[in-house]
Amino acid sequence: MKIVVDAFGGDNAPLEIIKGSALAEKEYGVNIILCGNEEVIKKCIEENNIHFDNLQIAHAPDVISMEDEPTSLLKAKKNSSMAVAFNELSKGNADAFVSAGSTGAVVVGGTFLVKRIKGVKRPALAAMIPSPDSHFMMMDIGANSECRPEMLLQFGVMASAYLERVEGIKNPTIGLLNIGTEETKGTQLQQEAYELFKNSNLNFIGNVESRELPFGVCNAVITDGYTGNIALKLIEGTALALFSMLKPVFLNNLLTKLSYIFLKKGLRGVKNKMNASEVGGAPLLGTRKPVFKAHGNSDAFAFKNAIHKAMLFAQNDVISTIENSFAEKENV
Amino acid sequence: MKIVVDAFGGDNAPLEIIKGSALAEKEYGVNIILCGNEEVIKKCIEENNIHFDNLQIAHAPDVISMEDEPTSLLKAKKNSSMAVAFNELSKGNADAFVSAGSTGAVVVGGTFLVKRIKGVKRPALAAMIPSPDSHFMMMDIGANSECRPEMLLQFGVMASAYLERVEGIKNPTIGLLNIGTEETKGTQLQQEAYELFKNSNLNFIGNVESRELPFGVCNAVITDGYTGNIALKLIEGTALALFSMLKPVFLNNLLTKLSYIFLKKGLRGVKNKMNASEVGGAPLLGTRKPVFKAHGNSDAFAFKNAIHKAMLFAQNDVISTIENSFAEKENV
Repeated sequence: MKIVVDAFGGDNAPLEIIKGSALAEKEYGVNIILCGNEEVIKKCIEENNIHFDNLQIAHAPDVISMEDEPTSLLKAKKNSSMAVAFNELSKGNADAFVSAGSTGAVVVGGTFLVKRIKGVKRPALAAMIPSPDSHFMMMDIGANSECRPEMLLQFGVMASAYLERVEGIKNPTIGLLNIGTEETKGTQLQQEAYELFKNSNLNFIGNVESRELPFGVCNAVITDGYTGNIALKLIEGTALALFSMLKPVFLNNLLTKLSYIFLKKGLRGVKNKMNASEVGGAPLLGTRKPVFKAHGNSDAFAFKNAIHKAMLFAQNDVISTIENSFAEKENV
Repeated sequence: MKIVVDAFGGDNAPLEIIKGSALAEKEYGVNIILCGNEEVIKKCIEENNIHFDNLQIAHAPDVISMEDEPTSLLKAKKNSSMAVAFNELSKGNADAFVSAGSTGAVVVGGTFLVKRIKGVKRPALAAMIPSPDSHFMMMDIGANSECRPEMLLQFGVMASAYLERVEGIKNPTIGLLNIGTEETKGTQLQQEAYELFKNSNLNFIGNVESRELPFGVCNAVITDGYTGNIALKLIEGTALALFSMLKPVFLNNLLTKLSYIFLKKGLRGVKNKMNASEVGGAPLLGTRKPVFKAHGNSDAFAFKNAIHKAMLFAQNDVISTIENSFAEKENV
């Protein structure tokens, strides 16, 4: 198993990315290809005493930043660490790709460099969102601002395959994000998608209202990329706003200030969980080979976990399951 | 000043609605028309020793419930307390309308019984959402699932007029809910609306991302009714989910349990603030006469405040300001 890593993607690149890759090699026995400026990578490894048993480096002189247009990956930034990593994957030199870099660029690279699975209209990006008891998947969270009903159904099929194969959830429950539970609710998109889901082989639980969404009422909630992106960031923003509303409660008097000392650690845990708004990263689904987007602020530990998910994504036949779903029309 | 009240709308109707109306009469010297079953209203007043100096009752034998189709207001439920209240307003017997009943029915009644202001494409529903420092308006929150760019601009014009006239905010800031701050972000709807807002006389601050939304970064955020409804309920749901995540933090050990005792009151205050997800109620804007939707779970105090807002809505020339905006094309 070989994983190609964009060593210069994410807020803590390259150090935490390289450290996380070394941890993954040690823990899972996986082979790593680090993409990026070879000199900088070697210096970083040396200076920080990072150990790899078996490391490949694919040199890439450039970096694609959050400010760059995602599509620049294909031209102006074709020598960036992310573009080179995508090419390693496409050429068959690696089994899966991981980057903590620009989400938009990951979508562009997945779609145009790795390319779509036959029958897939558009690849879509998932997110794993924390809920009180566990977490749930939301998809699409921004790859496709405007969607057709058939696209939403395909997202559901791909989400289901991934959750079953990688997360080990048998027959995962799938919901459609909507403004009411009745099947006549929402815009034409949701109404037509509801019909398609109802007649599919998915474990469809119906419409999910956003008031219930954060409680994780189904394993995957499907929506268009515009609404998904709004929802993902709103969960994060609301959590942050709420914590700032709680501040005066703790500062109220001497007793509440004292109380805060005992609660500090636990509160920080919840805040961190919600602040990230995503658990560990999530797959881009619909591409011919496994593309995994790690969270932008991943540290070494988080990045190691992202590599682990990418390994499971590659090992557990997610791609062939999706291929088969779209080959046999009756399953879609 | 005369306010017509749907006495049978809302979770706590008729008692809290009638009590709130009596409080409003006493505090603001306003005249109240209560709509609903006359016998039940009289009995409720008598049994609870509620005092009115000057009360009118408009008899309505029926009630429209949350389960009824909103459009039933126009036919099957035309003798409901809400329909009768709308008719009192349309006939000119009252200066403003207040109901804590079905939101959908309020939109239907406003649009088809009170009718639109000339030039207004579609009336839209606002919500006042709590933020750490104050609150902000979001509009539309569900009257129009699908919108055209011109509709969004009109929502902005109406929100601005209301906030200036009723809330006393000079030149209120208006933002467009979107998935990024750049003007090229979002779907065609947001992109085209951005152009219209940019060239309007509104105090337009550009796109607002949902991560910033709960902090109240502008006085009014404009969106289509589908996204607005998703966002409104998601803020509420996320707050509730977060409180359930905090529970184990407080139950962790003896010291944290003790701490909870000192924080309980303050925490409950924040929870209640967020639980309602809306402050006091909000106007339906774009109708020929003032229509105000009180929060469904209004108690007497909240309903009294809703009547006060409806009075300001009627007194402060919101309707004529909107009329003038749409009469003078250059202001839109």
